[in-house]
Amino acid sequence: MSKHFDALKTHLDRAMALKTALALFEWDNETLAPKEAGELTGNVIGILSGEYFQAVNNDQVKELVKACKEDGTLTLEETAQVRELSNELEKLECIPKEEYQEFARLVSDSARIWAAAKEADDFGKFAPILKKVIEFQKKFAGYQAKEEQKKYDVLLHEYEPGFTIELLDEFFGLIKKEVVPLLKAVKASKVLIRDDFLTGDFSDAQQEKIGRFLAEYVGFDFSKGVMATSAHPFTTNLHNKDVRITTHYNDNLDSSLFSVIHEAGHAVYELGICDDLTQTLAGQGASMGMHESQSRFFENIIGRSKSFWVPIYEKLQEAFPESLFDIGLDMFVRAVNKAEPGLIRTEADELTYSLHVLIRYELEKELIEGELAVEDLPKMWADKYEEYLGIRPESDKEGVLQDIHWSQGSFGYFPSYALGSAFGAQLYYHMKKEMDFDGLLEDGKVGAIREYLKEHIHQYGKLKDSRTILKDTTGEDFNPEYYIKYLKEKYQDLYHLQ
Amino acid sequence: MSKHFDALKTHLDRAMALKTALALFEWDNETLAPKEAGELTGNVIGILSGEYFQAVNNDQVKELVKACKEDGTLTLEETAQVRELSNELEKLECIPKEEYQEFARLVSDSARIWAAAKEADDFGKFAPILKKVIEFQKKFAGYQAKEEQKKYDVLLHEYEPGFTIELLDEFFGLIKKEVVPLLKAVKASKVLIRDDFLTGDFSDAQQEKIGRFLAEYVGFDFSKGVMATSAHPFTTNLHNKDVRITTHYNDNLDSSLFSVIHEAGHAVYELGICDDLTQTLAGQGASMGMHESQSRFFENIIGRSKSFWVPIYEKLQEAFPESLFDIGLDMFVRAVNKAEPGLIRTEADELTYSLHVLIRYELEKELIEGELAVEDLPKMWADKYEEYLGIRPESDKEGVLQDIHWSQGSFGYFPSYALGSAFGAQLYYHMKKEMDFDGLLEDGKVGAIREYLKEHIHQYGKLKDSRTILKDTTGEDFNPEYYIKYLKEKYQDLYHLQ
Repeated sequence: MSKHFDALKTHLDRAMALKTALALFEWDNETLAPKEAGELTGNVIGILSGEYFQAVNNDQVKELVKACKEDGTLTLEETAQVRELSNELEKLECIPKEEYQEFARLVSDSARIWAAAKEADDFGKFAPILKKVIEFQKKFAGYQAKEEQKKYDVLLHEYEPGFTIELLDEFFGLIKKEVVPLLKAVKASKVLIRDDFLTGDFSDAQQEKIGRFLAEYVGFDFSKGVMATSAHPFTTNLHNKDVRITTHYNDNLDSSLFSVIHEAGHAVYELGICDDLTQTLAGQGASMGMHESQSRFFENIIGRSKSFWVPIYEKLQEAFPESLFDIGLDMFVRAVNKAEPGLIRTEADELTYSLHVLIRYELEKELIEGELAVEDLPKMWADKYEEYLGIRPESDKEGVLQDIHWSQGSFGYFPSYALGSAFGAQLYYHMKKEMDFDGLLEDGKVGAIREYLKEHIHQYGKLKDSRTILKDTTGEDFNPEYYIKYLKEKYQDLYHLQ
Repeated sequence: MSKHFDALKTHLDRAMALKTALALFEWDNETLAPKEAGELTGNVIGILSGEYFQAVNNDQVKELVKACKEDGTLTLEETAQVRELSNELEKLECIPKEEYQEFARLVSDSARIWAAAKEADDFGKFAPILKKVIEFQKKFAGYQAKEEQKKYDVLLHEYEPGFTIELLDEFFGLIKKEVVPLLKAVKASKVLIRDDFLTGDFSDAQQEKIGRFLAEYVGFDFSKGVMATSAHPFTTNLHNKDVRITTHYNDNLDSSLFSVIHEAGHAVYELGICDDLTQTLAGQGASMGMHESQSRFFENIIGRSKSFWVPIYEKLQEAFPESLFDIGLDMFVRAVNKAEPGLIRTEADELTYSLHVLIRYELEKELIEGELAVEDLPKMWADKYEEYLGIRPESDKEGVLQDIHWSQGSFGYFPSYALGSAFGAQLYYHMKKEMDFDGLLEDGKVGAIREYLKEHIHQYGKLKDSRTILKDTTGEDFNPEYYIKYLKEKYQDLYHLQ
């Protein structure tokens, strides 16, 4: 082993141990911690975060990173770790420490104020601090920008390396051009899809039982994982032998079913990362978009297909006999694919989802690069919903205040959600050429599909970026046409269009 | 604030944050973590432990501790923290680092080998490494011993400052003299106590429901606490706003009932520590014995009394109608107080419990100070059980291998268990003079008793040691006669002796 990397590794191991502790605190906060613990546990988290910051950002580490970069003997895995650390350092180095700390405080206030403003349904309460957050984001992006690089491109790079405004304008342009008319056609269709049986008084215990079954069925390994409940479903991991998902139980049966499959998709990714990479900075999913591609692949492409339910639908019926006894498989599958414009992104169906993301992309690009004033956000938001989805939010709560992201300073994050769906579709059409995709699902062999994804995507962690993965797997660079094709085929068929 | 202490506080806060993270990992390991996570999470725990060690044990800290000790402006709370840290440093300083690390590795092997030996019911497998552990303990105690101080006294001091071999010989001598004949009389008594109804097929959900009720009833605040399950019940805390207990459910109803009350007693102590002390080195129970005094006070003195059940026994009957429908309160209370010699300490009743501890005290004292060879332990163990309890273990598993403590190098720990019971009895007789103890319980006012304990014990954390607490509260130094009196009164009445 390179002696430089060996020396750096001690620092990296410390940093990862602290990061893992922070992950456990986050998990615990969301799933279990008593409600009065927040402030004192916050002290602990603050100190550990500072320790993490110190562990990666000090002169020794900087020198070792420099030496490692000049060292020709590093393995691929080591090179990736050095690259990740170097990126992190580069970002931190160009931001003055006082500004960084000021921003950290601002964001913590901002998330709190956002929650209160949402509760009060009053964007005016949130606008002043959002303005400050945006100013910081622009300033920081300016520090980091190389030569002519645009600020929003700097932010996008953080979540999805290889994707620029230029590429995303093209991508979202295509979505606007194709999905908006497709949705209009769906709405105009005479086909009525019954889904009343998905609403009811379902017992938590039964939902949990079937949730655990589904998670395991798609490949979540309970000897290396945990499932719990939280207000909003999420996935976290300590390493590739401890990956955790949550779900929530309510009166929409499909909500818990598909959130479990979605989170299990994230988890299967993390569980599939190879042992050489876990517990390192390169031991996570390639990018936000690639992560979301896997969760949405499991949730939608696999989970909402008829083939997936062929071998297991009876089990679902048995779990909820009162609701599903007289509902055939076809009717069930149609119901869980029903498209209906709504105001809330996280509750959107597969077709309208991309439009929710399109709106956020257009708005945040304008906030960072254009002249859009924060005060005008609610109106612009509502106008765009009316234009693309044909419905208009009557309140800030159901409109511009619905997502936490901007309050946390996460600008450039939203596009990953739509990119993930598009990556998934591109992978799907390629895999259909390589294997009998539906046949495998009908035979209950999700494992074969999962193994393919592990071999081509999961195992690599951050060794490859998302565009490289797509190229290496499908033989083609990112191509959003597959996503459009997928949506068209699916919804034209479902709604008897053309 | 003293500028020395202010400087030291940064180090202390780091140390406490790391300690809190380690506590959360321990909790998570015992209650939730998936079974394959152990090795990789072990890496993280190892690194964080090292960080903790570094945080308290470095030249800067040593200088600051020295300066603080000479600084006359420290508050009581600050002085206690400096004292705790100074004790810890003193201990670490006199042990060569390599030996300390070697011992840490040894103990981790040893606990594993102990578990395997217990599983295989073969003390021979454990004996070689136990010998090494004892050698280390003796060597370390030798390093720390001041002047003529005995090694076992050094070890005792760690768990129960203020208690020496001399004092404990007197204490356990009294137990031997009084409890052994009392148990003989109980066994000879013609009184038969029915307790068959405590065994059965009790649903976990019902046990959990009543467990949560009991925990809350004795003062466990679920807005500052969590209850979960684990193989062995325990209590842990992150700080005084996040205290966690576990229990287990089996076919002995009293097992989960009283383990919940026991752990809730530990938890009430931690929840009662004052805000100025929490998240500091002085923000824990005064000693092992004082902690155990509170858990056993709640479990036995309060929880197994008839008065305690007067207002709530009906609730218990309603929860388990099939078993308790025709069992009156008196019969129930007699059953949960039945004395019966058994081989396993953790399952012992209140009377025989002290004899289990007596045996361990005598044996470990001989191991450290005397000539007892490890090879002779199983026989000596069995002989003593026969002599004091009238039964003889037929296997190592049910004999000398039953407890984990020695494998972890915890010599000097066991006496705390019996001391805790004795502290509790001394407090009890004093409290009976100060308040209508049974009347309060009969009126469902556990809160008044808890508040008294908080005022006199809990709030102080480590500001006072256990003997000072006893003196300040009862007006008397430690006096084991109360414990004997308590056991005599209780069991002579129960078994109609004299």
